[in-house]
Amino acid sequence: MKLNKNMNILIVGLGLLGGSYAKALSDKGYNVSAVTKLQDSVDYAIENSMISKGSTEVNRETVGEADLIIFALYPTVFIDWIEKNQQFIKSGAIITDVTGVKGSVVYKIQDMLRSDVEYISAHPMAGKEVSGVANSDPKIFNNANYIVVPTEKNTANAIELCESLGYELGFYCVTQLSVEKHDEMIAFLSQLTHCIAVSLMCAKDDEGLVSYTGDSFRDLTRIGKINDEMWSELFLMNREPLLREIEAFENSFSCLKQALISNDRETLRKMMRISTVRRKRFDKRG
Amino acid sequence: MKLNKNMNILIVGLGLLGGSYAKALSDKGYNVSAVTKLQDSVDYAIENSMISKGSTEVNRETVGEADLIIFALYPTVFIDWIEKNQQFIKSGAIITDVTGVKGSVVYKIQDMLRSDVEYISAHPMAGKEVSGVANSDPKIFNNANYIVVPTEKNTANAIELCESLGYELGFYCVTQLSVEKHDEMIAFLSQLTHCIAVSLMCAKDDEGLVSYTGDSFRDLTRIGKINDEMWSELFLMNREPLLREIEAFENSFSCLKQALISNDRETLRKMMRISTVRRKRFDKRG
Repeated sequence: MKLNKNMNILIVGLGLLGGSYAKALSDKGYNVSAVTKLQDSVDYAIENSMISKGSTEVNRETVGEADLIIFALYPTVFIDWIEKNQQFIKSGAIITDVTGVKGSVVYKIQDMLRSDVEYISAHPMAGKEVSGVANSDPKIFNNANYIVVPTEKNTANAIELCESLGYELGFYCVTQLSVEKHDEMIAFLSQLTHCIAVSLMCAKDDEGLVSYTGDSFRDLTRIGKINDEMWSELFLMNREPLLREIEAFENSFSCLKQALISNDRETLRKMMRISTVRRKRFDKRG
Repeated sequence: MKLNKNMNILIVGLGLLGGSYAKALSDKGYNVSAVTKLQDSVDYAIENSMISKGSTEVNRETVGEADLIIFALYPTVFIDWIEKNQQFIKSGAIITDVTGVKGSVVYKIQDMLRSDVEYISAHPMAGKEVSGVANSDPKIFNNANYIVVPTEKNTANAIELCESLGYELGFYCVTQLSVEKHDEMIAFLSQLTHCIAVSLMCAKDDEGLVSYTGDSFRDLTRIGKINDEMWSELFLMNREPLLREIEAFENSFSCLKQALISNDRETLRKMMRISTVRRKRFDKRG
């Protein structure tokens, strides 16, 4: 089953991602409603044609009509929500999410969820350094990857629906990963890079630096402007995979340092050549 | 004395930077010639109105008319060139460079140089991941910093000339640093970031990574495509300052890792908040 316009879609949590989902889907003619914490976010979303209706209340009326529910909440808040409110979900509904960590979320939710509701997990790899519904922008999806993360509990039907959601949102690439592989990839590609950017900004305090900087430093630290509440939660919820990738990086960094200490130019050049070849694979498509 | 249009300007080395200097200055009506290794580079530069004349020969005729000579060579090649060819330089000429490391270059050249020629060192903090005169582009200077690195041997006259060169090239910001402070800044802002990008690319070999990447990883590794000949030389010629910055980063990274190991969310958040505040200073001017 693919996403279709007869479905009622509910977004839970109108932040940057929830808002961008709402806008992308409403722009395409889907019927989108929302529940979220603040009335201001509901008002903003209605005024900007992101949703047809919204509420700060969670009950049978605001939740019970949805065929597809998209949770755009912090991982712990998502788990709490399901614990408290899953009785309001319509029988046969499919739920999905935007959570950036999977191992500590997916099994827990699938285990606690009613058997007549299916949870298919997904991770839209898109974002901004700013948060909130007013910063929503469906264009952030256009050159980005959408990862569907099925488990053996998922049906082909729900996987197909989730993949079609990724395409309808405008993602460039929709793929599948296992929970474990997802968490490894995220630990390396996203979390480790945020650890590095934060550590680099914390390594040296010198107001003069900014007068002498080039683009290299700016690029490496762009993500050093970071939502500390969200990212500390994401790091800790993916602690083991992240520590493995931190150690892989430390080993590699230590090789380079040792080559420098021992004036071993050939090892430096060899690492640089490996880096150059591998990095070329990541050049953006057109 | 500021740069003026009666001066004969000679570029030594028509690579990416030498070519971009030549183009920027010729576009503004300066009289620019060049000596470089390959006839192809000379031909390209003449065809593209980057220089009025050029040669692969180094002699009194090709060098001796220049009032200002700009060396756009690798550091070791620059030092060799001065050793072999300084007798061709006109008495009273001023020479400058684009070298990215200073401690291992500036004193050596100032010590060996004839007393009737003055060397004022400078570092244009601009570049690209590609090399060669055909990739030259003066626009790389427009949002970048130009650092003049005087020593006590330099005259106010040469410093003024060098600063006016930076402005004429189109740099956004022209500043001065001591040799030692320059090397510390470069070690932190430029070399350490390249060490990190290379180490990150060498840490994990997985062809699948590219399907799942977001912009964070792309930004952190953009400079992982690296000219291994040039950068291994730059690293080794700035070895001590670079090792100090590597250790500062390792300490900071280790703090973050320890916080993760001990589930210390408050330390993680504190580092993130410091990072966020400091990184805001680096946001680009309009």
